[in-house]
Amino acid sequence: MAMPVYNFGAGNPDPGSFPSQALAEATARVLEGAGETLVTYPDPKGHPPLREIAAERFKKNNGIDLPVDSIALTTGSMQAISLVCQAFLHPGDSIVTEEFSYSGSINCFRKFGVRMIGIPVDDEGMNVDALEEALKDLARRGEPLPKFIYTIATNQNPTGTMMPVSRREKLLSLAQSYGIPIVDDDCYADLLFGEPAPTSFYALDPDSVIYIGSFSKIMGPGMRLGFFAAKEETLAQVLYWKIDGGTNNFAAYVTAEYLKDHLWDHVREINGIVKGKLDTVVQQLDAQPDAFLGHSNPKGGLFIWVKLPEDVDPVRVLELATERNIRYGTGKAFDSQGRDVKYLRLAFGYASHRDFEEGLPLLADCVREARAITLEARV
Amino acid sequence: MAMPVYNFGAGNPDPGSFPSQALAEATARVLEGAGETLVTYPDPKGHPPLREIAAERFKKNNGIDLPVDSIALTTGSMQAISLVCQAFLHPGDSIVTEEFSYSGSINCFRKFGVRMIGIPVDDEGMNVDALEEALKDLARRGEPLPKFIYTIATNQNPTGTMMPVSRREKLLSLAQSYGIPIVDDDCYADLLFGEPAPTSFYALDPDSVIYIGSFSKIMGPGMRLGFFAAKEETLAQVLYWKIDGGTNNFAAYVTAEYLKDHLWDHVREINGIVKGKLDTVVQQLDAQPDAFLGHSNPKGGLFIWVKLPEDVDPVRVLELATERNIRYGTGKAFDSQGRDVKYLRLAFGYASHRDFEEGLPLLADCVREARAITLEARV
Repeated sequence: MAMPVYNFGAGNPDPGSFPSQALAEATARVLEGAGETLVTYPDPKGHPPLREIAAERFKKNNGIDLPVDSIALTTGSMQAISLVCQAFLHPGDSIVTEEFSYSGSINCFRKFGVRMIGIPVDDEGMNVDALEEALKDLARRGEPLPKFIYTIATNQNPTGTMMPVSRREKLLSLAQSYGIPIVDDDCYADLLFGEPAPTSFYALDPDSVIYIGSFSKIMGPGMRLGFFAAKEETLAQVLYWKIDGGTNNFAAYVTAEYLKDHLWDHVREINGIVKGKLDTVVQQLDAQPDAFLGHSNPKGGLFIWVKLPEDVDPVRVLELATERNIRYGTGKAFDSQGRDVKYLRLAFGYASHRDFEEGLPLLADCVREARAITLEARV
Repeated sequence: MAMPVYNFGAGNPDPGSFPSQALAEATARVLEGAGETLVTYPDPKGHPPLREIAAERFKKNNGIDLPVDSIALTTGSMQAISLVCQAFLHPGDSIVTEEFSYSGSINCFRKFGVRMIGIPVDDEGMNVDALEEALKDLARRGEPLPKFIYTIATNQNPTGTMMPVSRREKLLSLAQSYGIPIVDDDCYADLLFGEPAPTSFYALDPDSVIYIGSFSKIMGPGMRLGFFAAKEETLAQVLYWKIDGGTNNFAAYVTAEYLKDHLWDHVREINGIVKGKLDTVVQQLDAQPDAFLGHSNPKGGLFIWVKLPEDVDPVRVLELATERNIRYGTGKAFDSQGRDVKYLRLAFGYASHRDFEEGLPLLADCVREARAITLEARV
């Protein structure tokens, strides 16, 4: 019998929440006479009705309009991030990120040859006092300022923290006074388990912010639909590098057709599922306090950040876990400086309750074993 | 009543050939239990069954295997072209293209800040003797060699010419002896009205060639599915810059599910439709020899290249045609050096027989009027 696989690695939604039946029906409606549209190239900014749904979500979360003309669809939010890099960065530039940030973004920034200034993260996200110091320090030394501040303020990846509005205001005011744009990666905007998220940067000042969103977290990354929004000039500057003939219209048509009637029901349904899984994860983590020293308390999103004992060897944990088919995100993958930090990231959207109940105690054993080896090695 | 629109501009397939009903059925089959796959990220090289179909097409056209592992899906072939540029080009580099080439590629090359060495095109595509001279000349002057040779050898865009195998062999041997890779844009590989296309460069020497293909011409550009193939090292070098989390799996699953049973029937059907339209276009062009001085004789593809009288003002033709809702490709858009050449490109896949019968005589009138004005201006 094949060994079970415990996939706590990738930021995938719950497989059972994928609306297969409803999407098949939406597709059938869309494809009636679709030849006229699907044999032509997409609108350079992408299918307008899906951009309208992006605007509708933004308005519900932030209370203000996001003009449909300010939005452009992309192949997942990751394409938006890489296009922003193409438009803004040269090798040798620096940017600001959270000290721990999304591994995909970090890898992208590395490819563009930039230095990441990693600002410490606490329970309320990026520490803006530390950011202030870092910017002051650069100015004092006459060094070039960072080209943008990349932040995941809502349901931060990997730490699962939420930046309160007071910090957002201070971050924005710093960005404004130094003239540095904010790249706000708001991929997890819809995954909220209680309170609404604090107002986003873009709602506070559309001129200073490139807003990045995704449909991957409520639909599925296989649909590859994300977007970004910015003032006209910046939007054009980023779209200039979108040399792909447009974002998939088939997926956009079908997704828009489904979400126009189901957006909020669907969001409510998945949030219930994902919150339930988070509860199971937290229960399991708290039951093994010697292996899992502590963890963040996500108010949404898909990720929880887990502190390992100081004397553990994270490389050994990964080896042991891999042998047991347990997948998770290493601390190192999310460290902006590539250090082997003593954390790991668990994704709680995809795996089942049973996977967590079985797999997390096994993972705790891996941590204990990696600790014992470290201790032995010291003798 | 709204004025009719004559769209002879974009490289779109026939709207009636879009398999709406069959795709809806394929989607329903794919989506049964698709949650498991569509809530995860795509394979970095893209959905394997669609890559298998790309390989099957290649084998039928060229008689040799294209390993599925050497193929990576992209958002249309245009993303493949732009990724190749990211991987290979720096501002100030030069590349070789046909003198007249695809406007989308030309615009892309311009964005990367490279100089295009445009080699003259005759009835058999790129003139390889002229290419030989150009390369010799660079070598003689000690100038850096071009980073790649970009060619559309089969159903060239915009000229609608076909490069015979003897020229392909000579082009390849030049590329080999100078150590310059060939980027073979083979988007129109399936649109053949008679003979099979001559063997492609990749079949002659996979090590020297990046092969680029598309599903846009047999399905529809709205599906945004293209691909490229190369030896392992080159594939990795290009994929390195594909920072988009993967190519749309929903579209890839559905397209593969449809094409696995219908590929060759579908290709036969669309070739019949498109060839019929080409015949109508040729008839109309030949009926107005004072306005349309000559044209290419496409053996496939979607485009025909039309010679305008020497004394015509192409800018004025465009103004007059735009007033009458006639769209076409200007010669200038396809000229690698951006010159206002006295040609225009007609696309014959999308518009209807009636559009051609009504619109091409109107376009001939525009040419005559632009000629008269030029003559008057001379008085």
